[in-house]
Amino acid sequence: MIKFCTRCGNNVSFEIPAGDVLPRHVCNRCGHIHYENPRLVVGCVASWEDRILLCRRAIEPRLGYWTLPAGFMENGETTSEAASRETLEEAGANIIVDAPFSMVSIAHINQVHLFYRGRLATAEHAAGEESLEVALVKPEEIPWNDLAFRSVTHCLEHYLEDLERGHFAFHETALGPAFQAT
Amino acid sequence: MIKFCTRCGNNVSFEIPAGDVLPRHVCNRCGHIHYENPRLVVGCVASWEDRILLCRRAIEPRLGYWTLPAGFMENGETTSEAASRETLEEAGANIIVDAPFSMVSIAHINQVHLFYRGRLATAEHAAGEESLEVALVKPEEIPWNDLAFRSVTHCLEHYLEDLERGHFAFHETALGPAFQAT
Repeated sequence: MIKFCTRCGNNVSFEIPAGDVLPRHVCNRCGHIHYENPRLVVGCVASWEDRILLCRRAIEPRLGYWTLPAGFMENGETTSEAASRETLEEAGANIIVDAPFSMVSIAHINQVHLFYRGRLATAEHAAGEESLEVALVKPEEIPWNDLAFRSVTHCLEHYLEDLERGHFAFHETALGPAFQAT
Repeated sequence: MIKFCTRCGNNVSFEIPAGDVLPRHVCNRCGHIHYENPRLVVGCVASWEDRILLCRRAIEPRLGYWTLPAGFMENGETTSEAASRETLEEAGANIIVDAPFSMVSIAHINQVHLFYRGRLATAEHAAGEESLEVALVKPEEIPWNDLAFRSVTHCLEHYLEDLERGHFAFHETALGPAFQAT
């Protein structure tokens, strides 16, 4: 994806810099090294009484499928601020963030998905620009077959398990590429 | 830092793209938007019997100060793989990763520091290229006044507390800019 140097605009080569072990995009003129690193997607499993806040996606990927409010963490914010911001932007809900709950590494797309547990400060919620609709659903109403991402399924499964046993832990896993239907 | 487009090499402007809320570097010719996001620094507090693995830094920042093995997570790996890799690279130690232990958001430098708990598979350890020396230290030998980063201090403090009470939790916090000596 990186063809030109962000500092001087010259062509770059893809090579292993001196003292490094991995290939990087290195500028052929000024020598600037362009590092690329995984991105954090941060969100929240937020409750109101016995219901969980879900959003139906208005954008690709997985348009029309249900998800937890989440998105790319921005520079200048903390992980919990990112969880609050995304929940407000996508679901129109102000939350009280309780604790980190689920972390999923998805190495083949260079992402780490981090979900907090939280509670809605009031019952108020409304679809943001990236959501078709937003709903507070009971556990038995979760649309398991219409969830957008496996990290969301993983988070919700553990959330209900922990709710059942009356103790919330921090859950970590890694997901590889999904099997494709042929 | 971004002056030229990575796709076409043209100049970029710093502006809020349509449908966005934050300014980004946008190419004036091809329109490519250059997103910048926080980076994950991943490491490990690794033990061997009653000792903890520490490294003395051979590179800036904080050259000469003690730290836990840690570094920028790379594309294509999971968080626990990053912790293992960094511990092998910086401290020459093979570890068994147990669980995520500490997460620290440092918003003013766009970083999230994530430390795992782990154990050395064997007592073997040796300074890597980025370390002046590596040591297995007893809790009472930790050089508190010569630690490189506050996220490391935070991690070690909680590690010893949890060790003392016999139960390891997952700890999360945020750190702002340090007070400067005047």
